[in-house]
This record gives sequence, C-alpha cells and structure tokens, in this order.
Amino acid sequence: MNDINVAILGIGTVGTGAYKIIESQKDEFPYKTGSKINISKVLVRNKNKKREGINENLITDDWSEIINDDSIKIVIEVMGGIEPAKTYISEALKKGKSVVTANKDLIASYGSELLDLAKENKCDILFEAAVAGGIPIIRPLKQCLAANKIEEVMGIVNGTTNFILSNMTDEGMEFDDALKLAQELGYAEADPTADVEGYDAARKVAIMASIAFNSRVTFDDVYTEGISKISAKDIKYAKELGCDIKLLGVAANTDEGIEVRVHPMLIPSEHPLAGVKDSFNAVFVKGDAVGDTMFYGKGAGELPTASAIMGDVVDVARNINFDCCGRIGCTCYKQLPIKKMDDICSKYFIRMQLLDKPGTLASVLSILGNNGVSIYQMMQKKRRNNSNAEIVIITDSVKEKNLKDSMTILEGMSIVNKVSSIIRVY
Amino acid sequence: MNDINVAILGIGTVGTGAYKIIESQKDEFPYKTGSKINISKVLVRNKNKKREGINENLITDDWSEIINDDSIKIVIEVMGGIEPAKTYISEALKKGKSVVTANKDLIASYGSELLDLAKENKCDILFEAAVAGGIPIIRPLKQCLAANKIEEVMGIVNGTTNFILSNMTDEGMEFDDALKLAQELGYAEADPTADVEGYDAARKVAIMASIAFNSRVTFDDVYTEGISKISAKDIKYAKELGCDIKLLGVAANTDEGIEVRVHPMLIPSEHPLAGVKDSFNAVFVKGDAVGDTMFYGKGAGELPTASAIMGDVVDVARNINFDCCGRIGCTCYKQLPIKKMDDICSKYFIRMQLLDKPGTLASVLSILGNNGVSIYQMMQKKRRNNSNAEIVIITDSVKEKNLKDSMTILEGMSIVNKVSSIIRVY
Repeated sequence: MNDINVAILGIGTVGTGAYKIIESQKDEFPYKTGSKINISKVLVRNKNKKREGINENLITDDWSEIINDDSIKIVIEVMGGIEPAKTYISEALKKGKSVVTANKDLIASYGSELLDLAKENKCDILFEAAVAGGIPIIRPLKQCLAANKIEEVMGIVNGTTNFILSNMTDEGMEFDDALKLAQELGYAEADPTADVEGYDAARKVAIMASIAFNSRVTFDDVYTEGISKISAKDIKYAKELGCDIKLLGVAANTDEGIEVRVHPMLIPSEHPLAGVKDSFNAVFVKGDAVGDTMFYGKGAGELPTASAIMGDVVDVARNINFDCCGRIGCTCYKQLPIKKMDDICSKYFIRMQLLDKPGTLASVLSILGNNGVSIYQMMQKKRRNNSNAEIVIITDSVKEKNLKDSMTILEGMSIVNKVSSIIRVY
Repeated sequence: MNDINVAILGIGTVGTGAYKIIESQKDEFPYKTGSKINISKVLVRNKNKKREGINENLITDDWSEIINDDSIKIVIEVMGGIEPAKTYISEALKKGKSVVTANKDLIASYGSELLDLAKENKCDILFEAAVAGGIPIIRPLKQCLAANKIEEVMGIVNGTTNFILSNMTDEGMEFDDALKLAQELGYAEADPTADVEGYDAARKVAIMASIAFNSRVTFDDVYTEGISKISAKDIKYAKELGCDIKLLGVAANTDEGIEVRVHPMLIPSEHPLAGVKDSFNAVFVKGDAVGDTMFYGKGAGELPTASAIMGDVVDVARNINFDCCGRIGCTCYKQLPIKKMDDICSKYFIRMQLLDKPGTLASVLSILGNNGVSIYQMMQKKRRNNSNAEIVIITDSVKEKNLKDSMTILEGMSIVNKVSSIIRVY
C-alpha cells in the first residue's frame, strides 16, 4: 500500500479541522482509499506562533519545501483570498499535485483558468468546501444529477445573514441589533460587509450556477443586494402574507440566458427553504428529471467545512490509486449569455408611506398600471398619525425595468412620503 | 470518441424513464462523459406488447443477445425482484460489463456477493436509484461524507406511507381511507403490504446502514413495524404534544452495535423531517464532523428514479473512459454486531383505556415504575362514557424489553380495558 502525503496551506479554523480529521480517521482512510493519508507539511505565515495540537515539526513558512517535495501528492489550500493562494495552487498543479480547496473567492473568479490547468496536468482540483460548507452539493450536481438539465438552483448559502434574519423573524429584532448579536456570538466578523451585502453568497452562487448549467458564471456576473435595508416591519408584514424573508442566491437557466442573483426574497412559509434557521444552509435544486431536491446542513465551521475538504481528499486519493486523476474536470462546455437584471421578471413586495388624503391610492395604482405593474395583493395598515398611510403591495410578476421605472416616478411625487421597501417575492 | 453501448433490462416505469433521458440528453452526454451513450438492446418478457416511444428494433426477449454482445459495456437492470435479475447481473459482471441497478430487494439481501463479483471483474455496480429514488444519498455517503464517522441515518424513504400519514395528519383521515385514496391516485399498489408494513423502507435502510457504518446490514437484520395500526387519534394527540407521526427508517452506530429498524415514530414538528409531506422522501444523516445534514426530494417515479440511474451511468461511462471501473467498490470493511431490539432504548407514546375508578391510574403508574419505566409527560383525555378513561403517556427513554414487560403485565390487568397504541418517540 502506498502512502499519500498531503500538505495543508494555512492552519486557521478549517485547516485545523482538516488536520483533526486526518488524525481521527487515520485508521479508516486505508480502507476507504487504499492508502494511508499522511500530513507532510503545514504552511504558515508565522512559524513561531504556538499552535495547540499541531505537530510543530510539520510547520514551515517556506513554500519551496512543499512545491519541491515530489512525495506530496495533494495540496489542501485553506488560506483563503486570491494571492498567494492562486500562485501556490497554479504551481502545485503544474507540478502534477492535485489540489483540494475551500477558496470560493478564487474559484468564483478564476475557476476556469485553474480547472484548465488541472486538466493540462492530469490533476484534480476539487472544491466541495467552497460552497455551503459541509453540505454535499458540488458532487451531487456534477455526478448524481448529471443526467438532468438543471433548471434552477436556489439557496441559503450564507449562515451569518440567515442567523440575522432568523433573529429578526423569531425575536422581532432590528437589523443592527441582530448583527451585533451575531458578532458577539462569533457568527459575524468585525467587518461584516462580505456576508451582509451578499458578496459571499454571490461567490457561491456563481460556482453552483457554473456547474449546474454547464456554462461559466463568475462573481462579476452576479447581481447582488444585501439585507441591511430589511426592517423588522418588513418581516412582520411578510409573515402576515404567509411568507418569510431570506437572503437567497438564485440561479435559473432560461431560454433567454442565465439569471444569477443574490438578494432578500419573500418565500412562502411552507417552502422547505423557509424552515432553514440560524446558521444552517440549504440548497434547492430543480432538475428536468429529478424535480425538486434539497440539500441541507452546516454551511460553515471547523469540522463541517473540513468534512467537505476531506471528502475531496478521499476522492483524490482514490483517483491516485486508480491512476485516473482529472477524471471529472471542468464541466462548462457551453457559453450561455447572462440575462440582464432589467429583463428579469419577478413579483415584488412594496411598502410605501403615502400622504393620507382622498385620491392618493388611486394615483399610485394608476402610475403602477401605466407601467405594466399589476397588483396581486394589497393591504393598508392602520394609521399611526394623520398625515401618513402605510400600504403594502404585492405585484404580479413584472419586468424589473418596469418596476424600477414606476418606482422612480412614484418617488418623485408629493403624495408619496417614502418608498420604504422593495423586496422580491418568490 | 468511443461510443458506450448500454442495455436496459425491463422497460416498465423506471426503464422507460431511463430510455427517455438517454434520448433527451444524447447531445449532452458526450460532453459530460467523453462518450456517446447508445441503447443497444432492451430486454422484455413479452416481445409483442406495444410500447409507445420505444424503438422496436431494440426490443429483445433473449438475454443471450445481450450477455454475448461484447460491445455492450453497461447493463441497466430495472426489472426488480430477485430472479432472474440476480443471475443476469452476475453474468454481466463476470463478462466485465458494469451494472447500474435500482433493485433494492437484491442489494439489500445480496449486495455483498454482487459487490465482490464486481470487484473480481474490475467492474462497477452502482445503485443510487435503489434508495430514495432521485435523491442523491449513496454517493454522498460513499464519497462526500467519507471522512466522517457516521453516527446516525434516519429517513422517510417510502412515499406511499408518507402520503397516507400526511393525509391522516392534514385531513384527519383514518388509515383505511387514506390507503384507499393512495391506491386511487396510484401512490399505493393493489397489494400495499411491502409499503405499508415497512418492508420497502427496511430494504433501503439496510443499504444505507451498510454504507454509512462500513459494515454489512441485510434486510433480515432490520426490525420492521408498519403503519396500519396508527389511528387518526394517535396523530391528533401527537400534534397536541407538538409532534408528527412518520414512518421512519432509523440506523444508528452505537458502541454496543448497530441499531437498525423501521417503525412509526413521533418526531417534533419543528424537526426538518416533520415537514416532509406527501410522496416526498428525505434522509437525515449525522456525522461526527459534518453534524446534521439532510437530503430531500422525490423518492419514486419514472423520471426522478431514472435521474439516479442515469447519474450512475454517467459515472460508469467516466470510469470506462479513464479505465478505472471498480474505483469505489464495497465499503463494508468492518463486521459490527447488530443490536437486539430488546436492548434498544427509546421514549414511548402509550395510549391506554382504563377502567374509570379511584386508584386505577396509581396502579398503572406503579407497574410502570416497578419495571423501570418512568413518565416524561402524561395527559388524561375527557371521558366519553362512564366506565372508561383514556390516558396518554410519554415515557422517558427506556429499554424496549422493560417497556414490553410492563405492557404485558398491564394488558393482563382487569383495570386496563385496552392498550390502544404504543409508538416510539424520537
């Protein structure tokens, strides 16, 4: 039996998780893969930092010790960020080392380039951990559902925002307070922008859309809108309409091109995604043959993410032992256009403050009608003061452009005190 | 590019689904697998039957035309039942043909033998479709979660019984009426025994447990109890206690051995499995690293099941093109004992009719106490007539044997009119 030596680049949360699993599963891997899995090196920036539980003889700050060691067959990249990760991964692939990475930033922007490089060098580059942490989703899309035309992928793929929205829903908290709580509990970073503004989710959706639709979608293609403007009142009114508000990544494969976007959305409370609470993630996949499927689990964390990483390592180890690395490479063999956001149709939830005098509502509805926006449902809330009436409208499905045009007109009218919220509806 | 020829054994619902997908995906498979996938032969019992949409030149009733055709590389077995499926599959493997099957009866009883045969002949035998129809679960267990010690697998894996229980829950129907409705709508067969008594679910749980725990579990190892004794009243009382009743397949990997069983169970209404309605299936998997995950989708039907079959065919085709068939074979490398049902601990829901006179309840509770059964929750329902009092007890976790012993005593007592229901609680 041949041993397989691996190097871990970065020993933060996820790297430590991978290290722990390699230790705890060391008697199992030979049966599962045909090889013992050994950690040869752990690359760090600061060699002198104390790291509990990590064998210090493995620690190095010198990449050349790894790249020039021909006995290292698999590089586990868990440093994050674009550089130096991209350079290291590229060099590893050129040397015939397979790569397992959790780096969504890198794959969402440079996936195509790296997958091509892997192919040229008959290597694997696997990244199950880059999307939705421990939840198996990349492999199901590339393999289990490979005989489907995937029509839609929709997911809650950011635990921080889901935690915040869950607390706003269940506890009636406002966004700022829920964010503060998330930071206190370690669910949100000190600078929460990437999570709260949807950039993290957008990267994951770009990766899933690329695989699901067999056509490359990059981070820049994804329309992104965060949750910082959602108020407890929006969530309360949504509930009255039988819906929950979630930050959803949505990718759809339509005849006119790929729709790909991240934004808050009202979904019916009985939809399986509505029940996904706190820091859990879930991805809903609709295929022409399989119909609706859903994958649910922990989207982040030391061991869940390391579970995905090490599942990939097991896969590569099996490929090494059967001499079939590169068996499943890039599956983007189409070049489908990305649909413009203005052309996407959706239903909308609109909350507005109107001047409370006769004829106001009629004027608003006629502006909407003139712009092709028809009303599916409406409610007027009880007056709090004399000069303001709050109304909530759910529109029928309408092109984004028409909706925006009508909102621009309404916002300029003296009878409209304020357009408080515009949120898409599933 | 080499074409890959396949034969389909059986052209019922699932076979027709596979046929349709091969047709609809014919321009995609070359990109996805590196090969065109051609149907060479379709094996049937009655050659003369009219089959809409199936090219009649492919139809044969002669197995020798398939087994002796060396150009056929993959055999798709969707006949069901033990024989002749087992003989055909064995012969195919011995000839070096890989096999994709949806046959849970066969895999649950003879999986070990067939996987060994595949290994000897460097072939694949894949069976994603045998468990939970279109839902990816075998591959996630064997690959994505391969770096976990799986602690528990629990699932709703029979659509017929879930449809019946959903209707009993949502419409208040009794079992017989819900079964009749299921039969009228085609969700239940004329002889519903295999579904209703849990045998179908038991086969699927045996397969999942074998893979999850790396130790062979066969159909005969699974304790099985169906849903025919569940009444609308049980479901109503369960709801009052915040629970739903589902037919669950449960497999757990404990220090004392593997627990594996199928029976109705109360689960909290907020548990993700409780929301799985009608003919949908879902499998809940708990791993030491990944934590809780769930896989949800259609557990049966022409195209969902064929989606799983053809996902396997894509996998085998990739293996053929990389000359690595047999890359993932049998993963049962342990021999863990199966725990006796008497030794399994569970909480129980007990509904009893007692003689309505002073001291009765005290006597019942003292019998339970003497047998080590302690009470977690109790409710006495309003009297309908003078001589009978209905009580519902939820016990603390207790060994099955103790519970059974106490029930035997109670059933022999004159103060106990009837023990109406005993249902396990999650």
